[in-house]
Amino acid sequence: MAKKLKGQTLIFSNPPQIIGHTSVVGPEEKKGPYGKDFDFAYQDVKCGKDSWEKGEKQMASDALKGAMDKAGLDPSDVNLILGGDLLDEIITADYVARDQDIPFLGLYSACAIMVEALGLGAALMDGGFADCVLAFASSDYQTAERQYRNPIEYGAQYPPYKQYTVTGAAAYALGWLGGQTWITHFTAGKVLDLGVKDPNNMGSAMAPAAADTILQHFADLERGLPDYDLILSGDLGKMGKKMLLSLLQEKNLNPGKKLQDCGALIFGGKEKYGAGGSGAGASGVMLGNVFIPKIIKGEINRILLVGTGALLSPLTIQQGESIPGIAHAVVVEKITGG
Amino acid sequence: MAKKLKGQTLIFSNPPQIIGHTSVVGPEEKKGPYGKDFDFAYQDVKCGKDSWEKGEKQMASDALKGAMDKAGLDPSDVNLILGGDLLDEIITADYVARDQDIPFLGLYSACAIMVEALGLGAALMDGGFADCVLAFASSDYQTAERQYRNPIEYGAQYPPYKQYTVTGAAAYALGWLGGQTWITHFTAGKVLDLGVKDPNNMGSAMAPAAADTILQHFADLERGLPDYDLILSGDLGKMGKKMLLSLLQEKNLNPGKKLQDCGALIFGGKEKYGAGGSGAGASGVMLGNVFIPKIIKGEINRILLVGTGALLSPLTIQQGESIPGIAHAVVVEKITGG
Repeated sequence: MAKKLKGQTLIFSNPPQIIGHTSVVGPEEKKGPYGKDFDFAYQDVKCGKDSWEKGEKQMASDALKGAMDKAGLDPSDVNLILGGDLLDEIITADYVARDQDIPFLGLYSACAIMVEALGLGAALMDGGFADCVLAFASSDYQTAERQYRNPIEYGAQYPPYKQYTVTGAAAYALGWLGGQTWITHFTAGKVLDLGVKDPNNMGSAMAPAAADTILQHFADLERGLPDYDLILSGDLGKMGKKMLLSLLQEKNLNPGKKLQDCGALIFGGKEKYGAGGSGAGASGVMLGNVFIPKIIKGEINRILLVGTGALLSPLTIQQGESIPGIAHAVVVEKITGG
Repeated sequence: MAKKLKGQTLIFSNPPQIIGHTSVVGPEEKKGPYGKDFDFAYQDVKCGKDSWEKGEKQMASDALKGAMDKAGLDPSDVNLILGGDLLDEIITADYVARDQDIPFLGLYSACAIMVEALGLGAALMDGGFADCVLAFASSDYQTAERQYRNPIEYGAQYPPYKQYTVTGAAAYALGWLGGQTWITHFTAGKVLDLGVKDPNNMGSAMAPAAADTILQHFADLERGLPDYDLILSGDLGKMGKKMLLSLLQEKNLNPGKKLQDCGALIFGGKEKYGAGGSGAGASGVMLGNVFIPKIIKGEINRILLVGTGALLSPLTIQQGESIPGIAHAVVVEKITGG
């Protein structure tokens, strides 16, 4: 039997460290309660480029370069880049990787990409296949609206439970030395579908997958809520977080304030942003610049980061399909003693 | 230093076996010279469904089920599914995975997905994270034309060097026992861009990446052409294969007939199919049902399978971007003696 697998959870015997990370966001995220925490915020939604897509690419490139700089890495130090984004054919990530002389593995799991990249990257390191990897993900309000719903110029009206895609890119460098947090476990999730068909209600489409992955993670490791200081979901928003809470309560788990959602937090709950943020960048920028600092300061110690993805395309919605969800989780913690 | 990495090549110390594989194709592929070799061919391009996309999903589901059946696997035996396809948001793979009670990692590298899935799956097994994985990929002429170019009803005229997307799905089960071929190495490729902007000329966009990955693989392992019975590229087509040959010749490598291309072969060179086949399904169906049987019969022993992906989206073409390429490679061979 696979020595480092229990159920769906990969257990790292030599957990890699996060040796550098960078978050780049847009103007709306800068205005939010965590605005001052991010490494850099563009005031221009196109990041000085002539299209939204080129702007998103700029943001993701900046994040990747920032993570390498903070970790003191040259491209030749990095064995592998793993990443993706929400655009068709993960074209942001493809073009960011084009500028790097480093092998690239493209991933797609919608807004769970950041966690998929961290988990797979850590597994490849623990397995002896790499000493240093970069994991990155991005999302962008303008590019996502145009692709998934309507170009923002149309001024389409949306229901209040719709989420607002986070304009943000995050990159993480994983290595063996010099970090203050470790990635110790990766729980890969299943695709679940409870029949949600409204593409404005992605939080509800993703919540069942989040619940399933959290419960599976606890079962695999014989752990429970007391073992974690924070269960941090990616981008369920207010609606999806509420549903996740009630799904966990059905299993007699009451996380209370131990459950936080990056999407619900990032815009401070303002009405303009509907049910809160979404997007592959949301969990990345919040983990790195809001919660990892809390670990480093000793305020918390162990986080279960649950990336949540809604697996839809405009075509599947037009064809009347429902929206499956997926959730992948990694444990981010400070390893002390030993 | 990472024990199982040389340059860009992951070296498996316990190479996983291919314990079952299945190829499902469409009517055009059935008419080709390898038509009788595939496990199943649909005569209806929608595979009995009411849309092309649902047809592609049916084909990919059949391949996955076929691979599990041939390997004698229940879903509970499988630790992980890895896969993807050419559709936006890899929606074929997402919906196929939804029907399985197995964790899923979505991948995207265009037509290199099959090799990315085989390589990553094998690495996770060798690393101690899984005992059994499924790797799959699909493509479909109808769904790809509609998404990347024009719906086929428009009857658009194309240049003779355009490739014809293979309607095909392939799935592989990797395990430890009962197979007759092994995956021993995985070389992850870089994203390369020599400036090709014509989306009908993807073979030329991918050839530089294929050459780079082949040369890197040889350098990493201190190997050369004599060490392989076949260099099998994914879907360069006639044009791309010609360019790859000339790029290799510049480095004094003359593979001659040792270099074959799944795309150039699958339709037998008929004019109707332009420069030959393309698509994420091409390499999968040809490896499993044409070349692995040759290994099993003892006609050849070691293949370097080079999956080639063109990283474009309709949007990037509209925005005047060039088309980067990527190539990932795995070594598929029969391990004898020991």
